[in-house]
Amino acid sequence: MVPHLVTALTGPINELEQRILDATPVIERWFRLEWMEHTPPLYCSVDIRNAGFKLAPVNTNLFPGGWHNLSPDTLPLAVQAGQAAIEKICPEARNLLIVPENGKPSSFYLASLVRLQEIFRMAGLNVRFGSIDPAVKRSQTIALPDGEKMTLEPAQRTRYRLGVKNFDPCTILLNNDLSAGPPGILEELHEQYLLPPLQAGWSVRRKSRHFRCYEEVSKRFGKLLGIDPWLINPMFASCGEIDIHEPSGGECLRTNVDALLTKIRRKYKEYGINEKPFVVVKADQGTRGLGMMTVRDVRDLDAPGQWVRGKAAASVVPRGEVIIQEGVLTNERIHDAVAEPVVYMIDRYVVGGFYRVHADRTTDENLNALGAHFVPLAFDGGAQIPKPGVRAGASAPNRFYMYGVVARLALVAASYELEATDPDLQDTD
Amino acid sequence: MVPHLVTALTGPINELEQRILDATPVIERWFRLEWMEHTPPLYCSVDIRNAGFKLAPVNTNLFPGGWHNLSPDTLPLAVQAGQAAIEKICPEARNLLIVPENGKPSSFYLASLVRLQEIFRMAGLNVRFGSIDPAVKRSQTIALPDGEKMTLEPAQRTRYRLGVKNFDPCTILLNNDLSAGPPGILEELHEQYLLPPLQAGWSVRRKSRHFRCYEEVSKRFGKLLGIDPWLINPMFASCGEIDIHEPSGGECLRTNVDALLTKIRRKYKEYGINEKPFVVVKADQGTRGLGMMTVRDVRDLDAPGQWVRGKAAASVVPRGEVIIQEGVLTNERIHDAVAEPVVYMIDRYVVGGFYRVHADRTTDENLNALGAHFVPLAFDGGAQIPKPGVRAGASAPNRFYMYGVVARLALVAASYELEATDPDLQDTD
Repeated sequence: MVPHLVTALTGPINELEQRILDATPVIERWFRLEWMEHTPPLYCSVDIRNAGFKLAPVNTNLFPGGWHNLSPDTLPLAVQAGQAAIEKICPEARNLLIVPENGKPSSFYLASLVRLQEIFRMAGLNVRFGSIDPAVKRSQTIALPDGEKMTLEPAQRTRYRLGVKNFDPCTILLNNDLSAGPPGILEELHEQYLLPPLQAGWSVRRKSRHFRCYEEVSKRFGKLLGIDPWLINPMFASCGEIDIHEPSGGECLRTNVDALLTKIRRKYKEYGINEKPFVVVKADQGTRGLGMMTVRDVRDLDAPGQWVRGKAAASVVPRGEVIIQEGVLTNERIHDAVAEPVVYMIDRYVVGGFYRVHADRTTDENLNALGAHFVPLAFDGGAQIPKPGVRAGASAPNRFYMYGVVARLALVAASYELEATDPDLQDTD
Repeated sequence: MVPHLVTALTGPINELEQRILDATPVIERWFRLEWMEHTPPLYCSVDIRNAGFKLAPVNTNLFPGGWHNLSPDTLPLAVQAGQAAIEKICPEARNLLIVPENGKPSSFYLASLVRLQEIFRMAGLNVRFGSIDPAVKRSQTIALPDGEKMTLEPAQRTRYRLGVKNFDPCTILLNNDLSAGPPGILEELHEQYLLPPLQAGWSVRRKSRHFRCYEEVSKRFGKLLGIDPWLINPMFASCGEIDIHEPSGGECLRTNVDALLTKIRRKYKEYGINEKPFVVVKADQGTRGLGMMTVRDVRDLDAPGQWVRGKAAASVVPRGEVIIQEGVLTNERIHDAVAEPVVYMIDRYVVGGFYRVHADRTTDENLNALGAHFVPLAFDGGAQIPKPGVRAGASAPNRFYMYGVVARLALVAASYELEATDPDLQDTD
């Protein structure tokens, strides 16, 4: 049932793992103090890549789908975390409204929504779905492949509140990344809790801002543990605008790709790593793996047709602002297919995760693409609890504890990021 | 690996289960509101008996051992609950001192302590053991059968604080039931958190007080769900002192046993239950199953030698105050052996459990006796999460969710009980 995980990881990552295991009480206390000062997003998933010599988050999703990919064994953890979250936000709440993505939902997405509903129902809330898609005009019951059913209702706005028919929630859980900008229906809901807040949507969010916050977090964490923050931090640069009329994307992109590749090369040399450096160019805004391109040499940018198709057929042109991120290899494999862990959190807690596996992709490519499948392997049961005394690199639980730590560092970064863009906090400055 | 559970349960208990499943959001909100007003004990285990027609807690342990009997799969839940607890008590804490039972520890008890240490270490604390046993004069390292080691140190008292050598904890976790009364070394520790508090020890605690609180909780919960509280409440009476010179234990015991058997008979008639009522007589103070006696007829009390050996060979004479509790049959079996679930909680959360199984005991006897073994079956992985849509009685998860609800009702009762005996709260009255 559980696929065999072929993971040949040695070297620096084991030292990092050992450092993290030894420092568990220090690390957990550090997080505890962070959460006294900052508020974690209500939920979050983080894509992590383990290159064997470094381990870094490459994507932090503030509107995670894919909840159905988590092992059902991890549900109690999610429920418990959900209870802790609600208690802080709205302890007297009876009702929670989930606002899903617009558009026709896939059966996968529906399964994810149903799992979310289950988590928050078990945490003690009546949960209903309120769509803000103008196309959803009336309540509809949708059957899922496994026989379950869910009801999607049009969200109804009153002057100060959002709800669905005969249902007035205390908290609104946004599972819609607002790629098209914040719709008016969600604005000025001052009487209810909208979580994550509007500024977590892609009209405001920038990957570069997130990774700037993450860089800060990784430096502080590196100091705490006495490690080079590069071991957990993907370097990056950003360009305000790339010029898609230029074959190479313009001077800014060219210069930054070249400079970043040089920096990575220097780091590889320092650590004696015999790999070819690469960077990933992606849109600074927007979700999923769209508009992503792997670049191994600045001359790759000059290739004709580069901006039309990108390197991989699934790529599309990243328009406007871009982030150029140090490429982090993933050296984990399940049945020979390249795999990367995705860690899920609710409130401040790691509640599960899975491997994203893609048979047709290589170790330096984006796996978040059509054809990926999901193996809820890593975080089954007690897997995220380290076993003290077991040597680093030798046990899945110890490795996954490390993944949970790095994912939570990205969660801390996300909390900084949301504070930095909080309109209420800015007004008071 | 997991034994087959032969559980033939039908009738009223399935209705109760259905009622509880349907009301999940209402129940969880009810708990949430309770915990806004009351503080749960830091940890707690509850023995539950499922008679098929009623389900009730029969023992609430505020100093639970047996942590090693929980499935390792449930560790993340315990860690998460431990984190939530610490955060409220002492968020900046680095250190936790566990005060174990006095006397030479069994290897089982050591394994339980090591598991507790693991839980709180993972929650972000350095954990050491400080014995208050005067016989423990110097630090000793003890090897456990599985190769693990633990160090037991003598607790050191300064004027205002308790610790061990070079270790000053913020919180002291008491895993010692103080049967012999509160030792001076634990008194007036006003600078540290002593949890559970001194009045949770058996010199202050009375089972009858706990079950009086539980009765109140069960009435309110019964009203919430529209059920007869008897379905979850074991009736009881108490006697200030039994007369062990009288063969029958004296008038108070005789009258109360008779009256309680009559009340149970009436309830059995009301529900059409064809079982023989019985009561359990136990010491109102004190832990474990010692001094426990099953009485099916008031004439049983007259049997010669009754008070010397009790009904079962392991019984000893209950001295002083006694509680006479409605006997609750346990109708669950593992491999033909009688079994009863034990539910473990940290803070307000159910974190695991196991079946206590005793091959040599009958359905109306105490299973907490020499010869019992433990099967971490019920609460493996996602077992305490109900599956909506699965009919009552048909799924282990649904049954175990119900167990978790009843255990938490006992937890609420324990919080009332500790408030009622809190010397600080009484001073202000």
